[in-house]
Amino acid sequence: MSHCELGTTYENKTRTSKKLFDKATKVFAGGINHNIRFFKPYPFFSKSAKGKNLYDVDDNEYTDYWMGHWSLILGHSPPTVVKALSNQVRNGTLHGTANNVSVKLGELIQTVMPAAENMRFSSTGSEAAMYAVRLARAKSRRRVIAKIIGGWHGFNTTLMQAVTYPFHEQEGLGLIGEEEQFVESLPFNDLHSSIKILESVIDDLACIILEPILGGAGCITPDIEYLNGLQEFAHKHDVILILDEIVTGFRLCIGGAAQKYNLTPDLFLLGKIVGGGLPIGIVCGKKEIMSLSDPVLIKENHARCNIGGGTFSCNPMTMAAGFATIDYINRNRNSIYEKLDTLGSNARTGLAKIFTEAKIDVQVTGEGSLFLTHFQNRKVRNATDAAISDHKLLHKYHMGLLALHQIFFLPSKMGAISVVHTNKDIKHLLDASRLLAESGILSYKHA
Amino acid sequence: MSHCELGTTYENKTRTSKKLFDKATKVFAGGINHNIRFFKPYPFFSKSAKGKNLYDVDDNEYTDYWMGHWSLILGHSPPTVVKALSNQVRNGTLHGTANNVSVKLGELIQTVMPAAENMRFSSTGSEAAMYAVRLARAKSRRRVIAKIIGGWHGFNTTLMQAVTYPFHEQEGLGLIGEEEQFVESLPFNDLHSSIKILESVIDDLACIILEPILGGAGCITPDIEYLNGLQEFAHKHDVILILDEIVTGFRLCIGGAAQKYNLTPDLFLLGKIVGGGLPIGIVCGKKEIMSLSDPVLIKENHARCNIGGGTFSCNPMTMAAGFATIDYINRNRNSIYEKLDTLGSNARTGLAKIFTEAKIDVQVTGEGSLFLTHFQNRKVRNATDAAISDHKLLHKYHMGLLALHQIFFLPSKMGAISVVHTNKDIKHLLDASRLLAESGILSYKHA
Repeated sequence: MSHCELGTTYENKTRTSKKLFDKATKVFAGGINHNIRFFKPYPFFSKSAKGKNLYDVDDNEYTDYWMGHWSLILGHSPPTVVKALSNQVRNGTLHGTANNVSVKLGELIQTVMPAAENMRFSSTGSEAAMYAVRLARAKSRRRVIAKIIGGWHGFNTTLMQAVTYPFHEQEGLGLIGEEEQFVESLPFNDLHSSIKILESVIDDLACIILEPILGGAGCITPDIEYLNGLQEFAHKHDVILILDEIVTGFRLCIGGAAQKYNLTPDLFLLGKIVGGGLPIGIVCGKKEIMSLSDPVLIKENHARCNIGGGTFSCNPMTMAAGFATIDYINRNRNSIYEKLDTLGSNARTGLAKIFTEAKIDVQVTGEGSLFLTHFQNRKVRNATDAAISDHKLLHKYHMGLLALHQIFFLPSKMGAISVVHTNKDIKHLLDASRLLAESGILSYKHA
Repeated sequence: MSHCELGTTYENKTRTSKKLFDKATKVFAGGINHNIRFFKPYPFFSKSAKGKNLYDVDDNEYTDYWMGHWSLILGHSPPTVVKALSNQVRNGTLHGTANNVSVKLGELIQTVMPAAENMRFSSTGSEAAMYAVRLARAKSRRRVIAKIIGGWHGFNTTLMQAVTYPFHEQEGLGLIGEEEQFVESLPFNDLHSSIKILESVIDDLACIILEPILGGAGCITPDIEYLNGLQEFAHKHDVILILDEIVTGFRLCIGGAAQKYNLTPDLFLLGKIVGGGLPIGIVCGKKEIMSLSDPVLIKENHARCNIGGGTFSCNPMTMAAGFATIDYINRNRNSIYEKLDTLGSNARTGLAKIFTEAKIDVQVTGEGSLFLTHFQNRKVRNATDAAISDHKLLHKYHMGLLALHQIFFLPSKMGAISVVHTNKDIKHLLDASRLLAESGILSYKHA
């Protein structure tokens, strides 16, 4: 079966989506509202979702491994969230004031993540990242931000640097390049080179910001020595360490990557899971840094670090869904992470075995419930390694799963397992992958 | 009754809020999640909201004129939104994919606002403003942004300039000043000075961004000649005109300020009302500009204007609430705006009369359902006029309404009337204001 035939199979099953996509292109640039949500020939349009399943407008049922940008660790519409939201919907979705649920959620986060001495809620991870950098510059009175090559911290102007392979071009039109001079990019898992770069800007270095596992760049796990080395450098030179746990927070374990890898960041970011399926971003960290943003303590506008906030920050819907989610996770933490680790491990081991047996070069990366297949023969240790994998083959593999086996990965993106996925689902994924690997579809050589 | 006695009355009624605030200060810098939500002695903590009312954790019922940062034009939890969200909650809150409701909402917006040839959904107004500026720079290949002195477009770094009186200082710590050199600030309603400033940067001028009514700066209405003059200048010099309709969109009339004032912006922003009480921001405008962000049309990352999106963009909860709201407004547009205009006009006229009769200098500004009292004797035509009003007196007036009359304005911020407010509510507001004006509380002279 060729790529074209795969496409035809997909198109035959998604005729209503095709019509909707044609309509959508007249409304939205590219027909979508997030660049990565487009895939060839056109994305299906979802109608509903429940548990591990996503349903499209043609009534196809997919086993979902995209899981709302990896946010839905309890699955779609888990009972605890449905209950909390059904109640909240009738009691106001946006009070625009301080509210009691936010304090409950904040205190719960402090209990399971003691490094969150203080925090502020915003509505997206992108905003939280922007505020963390602003706080770091305010505290240090220095300007340079060190980020990881391929690191993704949202669409905010400051951090839209070195995201896209080959990483040295401006990230598109409309960015005027003024921020670039204050951003340095470090090669992930290469401590020696990273330290050299950091040392070259030490006099003006405000912070190091990193995802402990590179998410968008391809589910790339860290060498512990690398994380420790960066942290040691930061602490030694009074440089603020910002851990972007938007993907890893509550994903790897209840305490996130900081707990898993025994790290002590000065600031860290939460998002995705902590919103319980509703919009959220949180900047958390040391009180001595966070208090620079305290409008009660610091009355003078120019002496304060002004961070949001926004109309929807701390809205009671997000607070209710977030509290229901984190409370459920906390009460079931042992069984949840044991299950997720087992399923994730089975997926990784199984996929590596299948493709190797089919003589297709593969590297399966990931940790806990996160995983991704890279079609190449070299170990994937940084964003460049991931970028030079065979992406056309990966796209074809994911389209094969989607069109022939009703399994949804956002094509070429990593997968996330939720607590409602089962051993049977992983077996289905492995069986489907074996069929694809053995069918010859994936042996087609791409230019 | 002095300010202290007012405070005591408030404290006696909000004891549980006081305890919650003490807890909240251990979790959040300043105890709040948006700087403007703090007010002295401490903000009450909301528990629920319904229709025109907000309820705090001490079971006080307030008539709400803050209305979720002026977002809730149908009131808190209107039946149409409750129905839509109760259904959506069970069908997935975050699909992470293209979905059918987004197309419905987008098409409806295009129907009532034809200038929205194309659009993209994000999760906050702040993000939408950031993307609009990025698009304008991408299209024009120029760098300078002209904004209004006191203009508020969210917490994004690019536009955090000239927001706070006296408007020439940096907006706090952590902003490194690199953006400043590419932002020029114009005095609202002063066309001659504004044009002079614009002409001085014409060679590198990318865009003019403005709120047609200054919202955060104090509910300041425009001279039509000013708006027309800026638009004429922009069109003549091929400078992109961005109208920030985050407050005014669907607030002044179904077509927003563009319809009301007969403007034809190149790009415009929506937020607040259009999310139906859930997080949203939208950048809309001409297809020829928006299409610079089309990832299907423009494959090369560096040749495209990369705008979000984000994890939560176009989430089905916001889409469902937004569609329910705009569809309801559209079907009842005549009666809705007629009612809102009448109530708003009655409030403005009544308040001006009451304070004038009590010999308290006042200017009541606003348009349609938006209004604010400024305690001063000069006409309020720009952000400086508003900033030099007696803010302590305004705070005291709003605290008097809150503590003695169960009427909630976020102290010192403008009020918004919803369709569930009635003539009786406006009468209550006027009666309460008269009692305060005549009581002597507001005659206290502030330093």
